[in-house]
Amino acid sequence: MKSKAVFYHAGCPVCVEAEQNVAHAMDPAKFDLEIVHLGQNKGRLKDATAAGVKSVPALVLDGTPFHINFGASIEALR
Amino acid sequence: MKSKAVFYHAGCPVCVEAEQNVAHAMDPAKFDLEIVHLGQNKGRLKDATAAGVKSVPALVLDGTPFHINFGASIEALR
Repeated sequence: MKSKAVFYHAGCPVCVEAEQNVAHAMDPAKFDLEIVHLGQNKGRLKDATAAGVKSVPALVLDGTPFHINFGASIEALR
Repeated sequence: MKSKAVFYHAGCPVCVEAEQNVAHAMDPAKFDLEIVHLGQNKGRLKDATAAGVKSVPALVLDGTPFHINFGASIEALR
């Protein structure tokens, strides 16, 4: 069974770079990847916060958050 | 042709978590992954610094550094 990978971003340049490189580098045989733009989809801020996401871009793998470089604080997106 | 991915770490708990999740999540069809322990292999600090790595764990994809969470500053490993 595939694991769930959620990439949270806000469209910032740091986010786009991480999406194009890290998120799309994930093994599609292992992960179902979902890309969530928190600026356009504020309803998902709750999920991101619950997963421990503090800033974007961030990749949540099986519920564990990995912050990749730093684009914006999650607080700045509310 | 495969791209080069280098995962730099220092054996810290944050590093191990990132290695087991993010580094090993990379698509092996796209990347040749090398894992470098900078604590045990200080000769590679120069490469890491040249690639723009400021802290570990970090993943360098085709020369672009992505810092994943924060384990230790690269300065602390010298």
